[in-house]
Amino acid sequence: MKYFNCDYNEGAHPKILEALQKSNFEQTEGYGMDIYCKNAAEIIKAKCNREDLDVHFLVGGTQTNLTVVSAALRPHQGVLCAETGHVNLHETGAIEATGHKVIVVPSKNGKLCAAEVLKVYKAHWNDDTHEHIVQPKMVYISNPTEVGTIYSKQELADLYSVCKDNGLYLYVDGARLGYGLCAEGNDLDLPTLASLCDVFYIGGTKIGALFGEALVIRSEGLKEDFRYILKQKGGMLAKGRLLGIQFKTLFTDDLYFKMSIHANNMAKKIKEALLNKDIKVLIDSNTNQQFPILNNSIIEKLKKKYNFAIWQKVDEDNTAVRFCTSWATKEEDVEQLINDIKKLI
Amino acid sequence: MKYFNCDYNEGAHPKILEALQKSNFEQTEGYGMDIYCKNAAEIIKAKCNREDLDVHFLVGGTQTNLTVVSAALRPHQGVLCAETGHVNLHETGAIEATGHKVIVVPSKNGKLCAAEVLKVYKAHWNDDTHEHIVQPKMVYISNPTEVGTIYSKQELADLYSVCKDNGLYLYVDGARLGYGLCAEGNDLDLPTLASLCDVFYIGGTKIGALFGEALVIRSEGLKEDFRYILKQKGGMLAKGRLLGIQFKTLFTDDLYFKMSIHANNMAKKIKEALLNKDIKVLIDSNTNQQFPILNNSIIEKLKKKYNFAIWQKVDEDNTAVRFCTSWATKEEDVEQLINDIKKLI
Amino acid sequence: MKYFNCDYNEGAHPKILEALQKSNFEQTEGYGMDIYCKNAAEIIKAKCNREDLDVHFLVGGTQTNLTVVSAALRPHQGVLCAETGHVNLHETGAIEATGHKVIVVPSKNGKLCAAEVLKVYKAHWNDDTHEHIVQPKMVYISNPTEVGTIYSKQELADLYSVCKDNGLYLYVDGARLGYGLCAEGNDLDLPTLASLCDVFYIGGTKIGALFGEALVIRSEGLKEDFRYILKQKGGMLAKGRLLGIQFKTLFTDDLYFKMSIHANNMAKKIKEALLNKDIKVLIDSNTNQQFPILNNSIIEKLKKKYNFAIWQKVDEDNTAVRFCTSWATKEEDVEQLINDIKKLI
Amino acid sequence: MKYFNCDYNEGAHPKILEALQKSNFEQTEGYGMDIYCKNAAEIIKAKCNREDLDVHFLVGGTQTNLTVVSAALRPHQGVLCAETGHVNLHETGAIEATGHKVIVVPSKNGKLCAAEVLKVYKAHWNDDTHEHIVQPKMVYISNPTEVGTIYSKQELADLYSVCKDNGLYLYVDGARLGYGLCAEGNDLDLPTLASLCDVFYIGGTKIGALFGEALVIRSEGLKEDFRYILKQKGGMLAKGRLLGIQFKTLFTDDLYFKMSIHANNMAKKIKEALLNKDIKVLIDSNTNQQFPILNNSIIEKLKKKYNFAIWQKVDEDNTAVRFCTSWATKEEDVEQLINDIKKLI
Repeated sequence: MKYFNCDYNEGAHPKILEALQKSNFEQTEGYGMDIYCKNAAEIIKAKCNREDLDVHFLVGGTQTNLTVVSAALRPHQGVLCAETGHVNLHETGAIEATGHKVIVVPSKNGKLCAAEVLKVYKAHWNDDTHEHIVQPKMVYISNPTEVGTIYSKQELADLYSVCKDNGLYLYVDGARLGYGLCAEGNDLDLPTLASLCDVFYIGGTKIGALFGEALVIRSEGLKEDFRYILKQKGGMLAKGRLLGIQFKTLFTDDLYFKMSIHANNMAKKIKEALLNKDIKVLIDSNTNQQFPILNNSIIEKLKKKYNFAIWQKVDEDNTAVRFCTSWATKEEDVEQLINDIKKLI
Repeated sequence: MKYFNCDYNEGAHPKILEALQKSNFEQTEGYGMDIYCKNAAEIIKAKCNREDLDVHFLVGGTQTNLTVVSAALRPHQGVLCAETGHVNLHETGAIEATGHKVIVVPSKNGKLCAAEVLKVYKAHWNDDTHEHIVQPKMVYISNPTEVGTIYSKQELADLYSVCKDNGLYLYVDGARLGYGLCAEGNDLDLPTLASLCDVFYIGGTKIGALFGEALVIRSEGLKEDFRYILKQKGGMLAKGRLLGIQFKTLFTDDLYFKMSIHANNMAKKIKEALLNKDIKVLIDSNTNQQFPILNNSIIEKLKKKYNFAIWQKVDEDNTAVRFCTSWATKEEDVEQLINDIKKLI
Repeated sequence: MKYFNCDYNEGAHPKILEALQKSNFEQTEGYGMDIYCKNAAEIIKAKCNREDLDVHFLVGGTQTNLTVVSAALRPHQGVLCAETGHVNLHETGAIEATGHKVIVVPSKNGKLCAAEVLKVYKAHWNDDTHEHIVQPKMVYISNPTEVGTIYSKQELADLYSVCKDNGLYLYVDGARLGYGLCAEGNDLDLPTLASLCDVFYIGGTKIGALFGEALVIRSEGLKEDFRYILKQKGGMLAKGRLLGIQFKTLFTDDLYFKMSIHANNMAKKIKEALLNKDIKVLIDSNTNQQFPILNNSIIEKLKKKYNFAIWQKVDEDNTAVRFCTSWATKEEDVEQLINDIKKLI
Repeated sequence: MKYFNCDYNEGAHPKILEALQKSNFEQTEGYGMDIYCKNAAEIIKAKCNREDLDVHFLVGGTQTNLTVVSAALRPHQGVLCAETGHVNLHETGAIEATGHKVIVVPSKNGKLCAAEVLKVYKAHWNDDTHEHIVQPKMVYISNPTEVGTIYSKQELADLYSVCKDNGLYLYVDGARLGYGLCAEGNDLDLPTLASLCDVFYIGGTKIGALFGEALVIRSEGLKEDFRYILKQKGGMLAKGRLLGIQFKTLFTDDLYFKMSIHANNMAKKIKEALLNKDIKVLIDSNTNQQFPILNNSIIEKLKKKYNFAIWQKVDEDNTAVRFCTSWATKEEDVEQLINDIKKLI
C-alpha cells in the first residue's frame, strides 16, 4: 500500500533526526528557553527580514490555532473564516471550546477576499443591536488553503488593508506554508507575508519535521503574556529544544523550501498527467494537494493499492479525491500511480 | 411615538403586578425553593398533562438557552440550528462562550426539517475523521421561529423522530410560545409539545410577564444536577418566588393564552390591511410578528411616528420591516398605524 | 415560622412596587437603553460625585461577578479572594466556568489586607517559572464581607494602593453595600468607595429591591464593550427598565440607606440583647448579619419557630448561627426572637 | 554547568532515537491510528495485566491533565487536589480554563489521604445549599508526588475505596511514575495501580522519552468519545506514531524501569551523602527528586557550577533546593556534586 493520503505519513527528513541525535546529550533549559529555540527564532526573524517579531514553537496546528485565538480575543469576539477553514471544520470545535465563535464568511476556492470580509464586518456594526452579535475581531486564513490554492500578494495586501482599517487581526495558518511559497504562480515570500499580517505560523509537521509549528507574531498587541497562554493550553513542550533543533535544521540550507519544491513537483507531475488524460479537477491547485475527479469504479480499484482521501461527491458516478505529496514522496511511486490511473481510464 | 418594535416595550399584565403586590410581605425560601415556584411547576405539569417533567424558572431567554446547552452537552458536542436561530445570531456567542459550536443547518422560513437535520447528522458520522469534527448532539428550534412561522405537529414529530433515532436532544425555544400555540393554523398544544421534544421553555418575558421563562425538561438525562448549572451560570434568582408568582398568574384562567390571542389578533389586523393594499410580506406569519415589505420613503415617514424594526433590505427601493404586537397593543394604535400606512402608499 | 435566614425573604419595599405599577404602561426601549436606566445611572453618578463612571444594571450577584471577571481578565489571569469570598465558595464555580482561577489569599474575619495581597502577588512574579502560574490580575473583596465585617477607609486605601502599584484591578462586591455604609464605625461613603476601587456594585436584591445590582465601573480599561459581555453571559434584561425604575426609587429620598439603617438597627438589637446575656459571637459584626454562638439544644428548639442559618460548628456542644435582618424585619419579631432565646438560656 | 534542575534536560534515551530512525520511512496512518500505537497500547495493557483498558498517547503532562478533566467532568464539577498538586499550582490555570474548579484538600508531604477527601466530599453534601458549591467529582493525585513522596498500596486502596463509595473518579498523574514504582519502599506495580484508580498516565517526558505520556483509562464512563476531546484540546499528534514508537521502546526489555532505577540510584547517592553530613531534607524522598536544606551561602556558590531549583525558603539563612536526576545523570557528575557540597560545608 502506497500512501498519498496526507503529508505526514512518514517520520521526518533525515537531517532532522540527525540533528536530534547530535544534540541528544546536551543539557539545556526546558520549556523553549534553550539556545536552540533562541537560534531558530533568530534565523526565522532573519528570513522574515524583521527584528520586531516574537517567535514561539508549538507542537501542532490545532494547538497553535486555539492558543493564538485564545490569546488574542476577548470573550465577545469571534474569528472570521472560510467555510472550508480548518478551524471551522476540522478541529472538533477547538476555537469554540476556548469560548469564541467562528463566523463563516462566503469564500471561493477556500479563499477569503477583502470585499466579503468588509461586508461581514460592516453588517455587524450596522446592526442596531450589535451588542447582541459576536464582534468580529480576527480574520483567519490558510495559505495555502485547505484546498491547495494560494493567495497572491495583492489579495493578501487587500485583505490586510481591510483588517487594519477596521481593527481586525489577520492570522495566517501556514500549516503548509512552504508548499504555498514555492508554488508556481506564487509571488509571496516570508518578508512580505510577515508584513502583510499580524501573526502567522510556519508549519513543520506537514513539511518534513517530526512535528512542530513556528508561530511568528508581529503585532505588539498579540505578544503580551503569550507564553502564559501557551502553557495553559498545554502547548508548551517540556523539551522545547526539540522544536528549536528542528526549525533550525529546516531553515538551514533552505531545507524547508527544497522539500516543499520536491513535493510540489511530485504533485505537478500527477496533475499534468491527469489533465493530459482529460481528467478534471475539483479545484486548480499548484501546491502539494491535487483534487482530481475520478469515476467511482476507478476509485474502488485504486483503493486496493493506494491510500488517498475521498474528498467530495461530485455526482452519482464521480467523486473528487485528494492526492497529497510530501518531501518523502518517491518519484517512482508517483509514476506508478499515474500509470495505474491511466490504465484504469 | 408608538412602539411596534418588539413585544417587551411595556411592564407586565396588571394581574402580574397585582399578584406580586399581594404576596409582597410573605416570607419564603430563596432560590426557587418556595411554594409559589412549586405551585407554578405543578400547574405547568398539569397543563402539559404529564408528571415526568422538571420545571425550572429562569429570568431570560439567552440565560435559559446557554444554561440548557451547557447542562446537556459534553465539550465536543454541538447544537444544530437554523441560520436565523436566536442562539446563532443574537446572543453574542453565548453558546460558544460555554464551549460549544452552533452548527448551521440549511433552513426555510426559519424552520429546520427532519431531512436536513438527518443529512448534517449523517455527514458527521460518514466522515472518516469524525473525531475531528464537532459531534452533533442537540437540535435547537424556536416555535414560533424568529420570523414568526410555526411548526406543525407533523413537522415536529418528524424532527423528533430523527432526533430520537440518532441520540440527539430536541430543544424548543418557546420565547414566544403562546403566540405560536394560538396562531391560526396551529395544531400543537402543550401536551403534544411536551411529548415531541426533550426540553422546551415557555416564554414569559415576551408574553406579558415582567420577565421569566419556564423551562420544562422531560428527558431524564437532562434533569440531573440542573440546578447546579443554573446557579453557576447566574440564572438562579435569589427571590425565585417572583418567577413562581408570575407563572402561576400566567397559567391561571388562561391568561397566557388570552394575551397571546390578543396579540395575534392585532397582528392579523395589520397583516390583512396591508395585504388588501397589495403590500407583500417577506415571510407569511400568523403570529405576533409581521414582516411587510415597504418602500423606503414610506419607512422614512413612518419612522417619525412609530418605532419598529428594520428587518432586511429587499432591493434598492424596498425593505422588509417588522411590526410586533403584544398583550399591551391597543387596537386604536393598530388602526392608526394601518391608516397612516394606507395614506402613505 | 419567622424568617431570619437571609435578607431576601420578602418581595420588595412597597415604593418599588409602586414605581413599577406607575410606569407599567409606558413604552420604552429594551435592554437597558431606556430613560429609567439612564436616570438611575445619572443619580448614582451624582451620589458618587463623579462623572467618569459607567453604570450597568444586572439582575443578581453571581451574574454580576462572573460578568465583571469575564470582561476584565485575559485567560491566564486570576482573581485574588478571601477563603470566605462569595466567588470562591458560593457560586458553583461561576468564575472558573468563565475560565479563571480564584486564588485564595489568607484573610481575617472575611477581609483581605494589603500586605497579604502584596505577598501573593510578589510570590507569583518571584517564581522563575511565573508563566506556569496563574497571573494575579484582580482583587475581589466584599464590603461588607460575607461575615458582616466592614473595611475602613484606610484599609481600602491601602489595598487599592497595592493594587494600583501592581496593575491589579480592585473589585468590590457590594451585595450588601448599604448595610456596610450605614454600619456603626463605618467611615466610607459612595464617593470615597468610587475613588478607592476600579469597579464595584451596589446591591439591590438584598436591600429592598425585587432584584437588581447596579454595577459601577470607573477604570477605563474595564468599560470597553462591557454590554457585549453582559449580553453574552445572559445578564442583559430585556425589560431593562425594571432595573432602572428600581434603582431610581432606591436612590430617591435615601430609601436605600433608610432601609439599610433599619436592618442594622434590628441586627444591633439582637446583638446587644445576646451580649447582655453573655452569648459570644463568632465574628463581631455591625451590619445586618449576626453570628451568635448558641448551644445546640437551644438551636434545636429555636428551629421550630424561626428560620435561620446554621453557620459553623464551634465545638461539640455549640454552633454559630446566622440571624439576618432586612428592610422588612419587624421590630416585634426581633423582640420575640430575643425573648425566646433569653428564655432558652 | 551541570544540570540537576529537572529530569528533562537532555533529549531521549538512545534506543528511542534508534527506533525513530529505524521506522522513519515507513508510511502509516496519522493521529494515533497506526500500528505502533496499537502495539504500544497492547504492551501496556499486558503490563497492567488487564484487557479492559483504553490507552491514548499524548505529548505532555498539562495537556494530558486538562484533557482528562475536560472529558470527565460536567460543568459544575470540580477536582480535589493537594495544595502542591501540579494542576493546582503549575499549569497556569489549565483546569480552570476548561471551566472547572480545583478544590484544595489538606495534604501532607504532597499526599492526599482518604479521610481528608471524605471530609471535603461530605462537607459539600451536608451543606443545605449544595447546589451553590462546586460538586466534587474527581480526585487528582500524583504518584510520585510533586515532592518526591509515594503512595503505598494501602493508602491508594483506601483513597480509591472512598472514591468508589462516593462516585468520585480517582486520577493518578504519573508524570514520574517509573521513579515511584522503582522507589525503595514502594509496594505498587502497574497491575495494582490499574486496579486502584479510574485513570492514570505513565509519564514518558520525564523518564527518557523525547516526549509523551501514555494515558490509561479503565472506567467505562471515561472512555466514551475521548478522542474527540483529545483532538479538540490540541492533544492529538498528527504523527501519532512517534508516541507509539517511543512507548513501545520504553516497555521493551524494561527500559522504562531500568532508567527509573538508575535515576533513583543517583538520587539516593546524593541523599545518603548529604545525610551523612547531617544535612537535613525538607521532605524525605526515595525517588529521583531530593530536597536538601542548604545554607544560602553554599547555594550561592553551588549555583556557579550547577543548575538546580530553589524550592522553598526555610529560614533567614537556609533554603530547601531540589536536585533532580534522570536516566541521563552521570555517576561522575553526582560524585562531583557531592564532593563540592562537602567541601562547602
